[in-house]
Amino acid sequence: MRFRSRRRQGESMDIAIWFDFASNYSYLSVMRVEACARERGVGVSWRPFLLGPVFKSLGMDNSPFVTQKIKGAYVWTDMERQCAKYRLGWTKPTTFPRRSILPARIATLADGQTWQGEFIRQVMQLNFVEDHDMEDHAALGAILASLGQDGPSIIAAAEADAIKQQLRERTEQARLRGVFGAPTFFVGDEMFWGNDRLDDALDLAATRR
Amino acid sequence: MRFRSRRRQGESMDIAIWFDFASNYSYLSVMRVEACARERGVGVSWRPFLLGPVFKSLGMDNSPFVTQKIKGAYVWTDMERQCAKYRLGWTKPTTFPRRSILPARIATLADGQTWQGEFIRQVMQLNFVEDHDMEDHAALGAILASLGQDGPSIIAAAEADAIKQQLRERTEQARLRGVFGAPTFFVGDEMFWGNDRLDDALDLAATRR
Repeated sequence: MRFRSRRRQGESMDIAIWFDFASNYSYLSVMRVEACARERGVGVSWRPFLLGPVFKSLGMDNSPFVTQKIKGAYVWTDMERQCAKYRLGWTKPTTFPRRSILPARIATLADGQTWQGEFIRQVMQLNFVEDHDMEDHAALGAILASLGQDGPSIIAAAEADAIKQQLRERTEQARLRGVFGAPTFFVGDEMFWGNDRLDDALDLAATRR
Repeated sequence: MRFRSRRRQGESMDIAIWFDFASNYSYLSVMRVEACARERGVGVSWRPFLLGPVFKSLGMDNSPFVTQKIKGAYVWTDMERQCAKYRLGWTKPTTFPRRSILPARIATLADGQTWQGEFIRQVMQLNFVEDHDMEDHAALGAILASLGQDGPSIIAAAEADAIKQQLRERTEQARLRGVFGAPTFFVGDEMFWGNDRLDDALDLAATRR
């Protein structure tokens, strides 16, 4: 059954948020999207993927914030201001971009689980508030435990081939759909790029019935 | 006398808008900045400059919207949506980026003149609504005439060495201040990049007394 046929008449469309845990502008949207969507009666689908392979396919070796020094310097000023505006915690990560494969696999495994959103937000805070390694098993285990999950067994399950393959396929799907940065939102087939378009995407989702 | 010492106690700071007539995101801000600033009691200083030399100094041959094809394609969808949101006219220019040196020189010459803002907006519409050559003397002459100015003599004056030099210096100043794209706003020494930061820049200007 296709997605559209599952929607009831008069229901709003979901917003899908494609993000990478290493992406600072993804942090701004990840922390806000569920609350902003709820206000408008819109549902959220999480789409963790890896930006690295997408950048590589576009001929880029690293984040443009690393390769373009002058823009990179500005971005950290901008992040401070945006976090103050949205009242989000903020610490400039000492490692950027930070490795994000293991939490992306866990977030993939968590698809459809009630703890998925809260897990994703807590990992983002690990990176952008606590300035901590996101692949540290102890830190991930503590987050999972706080959500009532068994850390070691979830981490082991996330390292299974099936989940690895799912994340690879999700990343390839991002590339095929024309994603070139994160966060990227989809409302049906309409693509919106960047935290600055979250409101526009939600407004569209709320009015599309 | 320095800028700050000229402000009266209790007066808000100005916002300076650095823009290139060829830049589509500059169009979105240029059309809105005076009205949005007025609502907050903020003054506007126009800073026309040329993006080309700034991009070159950063090692870029052209607009990233031309060199990065996948992002470039998205930008035109985004422009359509943003113009609809702000209720601005929109035609995708058949030439992009369009040559903008002559209107930038005229806008430089117009510094401090009452017709500067309206001239700048009309040239932006020439490019992004009428899809017309911005260096066409007849079109520029018609705009100037509509503002009560003598087109041919203004155009001749704008081609004088002193104005050419002023625009070159303005562009060099942009580079020295860390400008890497357009529009860029300054409120005192605080830099904001992009149409999506116009509101934040104005909010800062309104509260800085």
